[in-house]
Amino acid sequence: MKIYKKRDFPVSDVRRLLEPGPVVLVSSAFKGERNIMTMGWHTMMEFTPALVGCIIAESNHSYELVRRSRQCVINVPTVELARQVVQIGNCSGARVDKFAKFKLTALVADEVGAPLIAQCYANFECKLADRRLRDKYNFFIFEVVKAHAAVAPKYPKTIHYRGDGMFMVAGRSLNLRRYFRPEML
Amino acid sequence: MKIYKKRDFPVSDVRRLLEPGPVVLVSSAFKGERNIMTMGWHTMMEFTPALVGCIIAESNHSYELVRRSRQCVINVPTVELARQVVQIGNCSGARVDKFAKFKLTALVADEVGAPLIAQCYANFECKLADRRLRDKYNFFIFEVVKAHAAVAPKYPKTIHYRGDGMFMVAGRSLNLRRYFRPEML
Repeated sequence: MKIYKKRDFPVSDVRRLLEPGPVVLVSSAFKGERNIMTMGWHTMMEFTPALVGCIIAESNHSYELVRRSRQCVINVPTVELARQVVQIGNCSGARVDKFAKFKLTALVADEVGAPLIAQCYANFECKLADRRLRDKYNFFIFEVVKAHAAVAPKYPKTIHYRGDGMFMVAGRSLNLRRYFRPEML
Repeated sequence: MKIYKKRDFPVSDVRRLLEPGPVVLVSSAFKGERNIMTMGWHTMMEFTPALVGCIIAESNHSYELVRRSRQCVINVPTVELARQVVQIGNCSGARVDKFAKFKLTALVADEVGAPLIAQCYANFECKLADRRLRDKYNFFIFEVVKAHAAVAPKYPKTIHYRGDGMFMVAGRSLNLRRYFRPEML
């Protein structure tokens, strides 16, 4: 599988990759255990600090790793990984090491203990910023403290979940800059 | 502009249209005033009740209408409305009636006072479910209490914002049902 060559990416720009709504892979680690989960329910909440809110349900094996470490990495996969993204979401880290099972390369992160997935287009290192809605909704608010992204292609072919086993693959680009007020870009 | 012919849509299925991450139009009304805003920061939070969390910044004219009415409609536009979606986000409802300015048809909703936008592919009538994060993050949690969606096309060409004036148009469909455990669809 392709390993994307990445550079540091401004954390204030993570919206460029998350706002379109891709399915992501969340990697986590705690006390020698590590895991990956597939996650589709997330939203940007602020540019600076770069806040991302997301649902990590208690039924996921990753929940305890994230809750206890208060960290994770949000990895953005592209269509080449689509089958693995589904299969990662359809097995439990309680029984398998998903890095080994899916032949994914774990890289050491700069700011968090959770590993980066080398085969993903981008990796966002996250620290817990607010857990106020965690117990009621399984909703975590993370701050992206360090970001890495591939330089090419400029617009990755991310995958977006429609439910019922169907995904939408990121399509053509549309430049509507001319209709924006500059401060609204 | 095309007016989509719609049917009632199960509220437990709104994830099919929101989870892929489209830019949406939020319509609102309060005491004889109405408005539309463009919104890109939202996430599903629960299937049943159908909860959607989203950021409606205080700087938007719609903020007060939503805050005071505790209701809104989340409308899902398709690529035919792309220019209007941008322009709606780049002018203020304090100065113009956006329905008139952008020749959009306001339809009466069933459950809320905010109008539906007839030219959008789907309309989700929402009532405020939780405002706990409103003051700190401008984050509202709504319950979708009634949903309407077009029957065709099955997969709408939604638009997804990448920042900097660039949009991604929903691309091809990918059926990965065979890799799912049935209960995970």
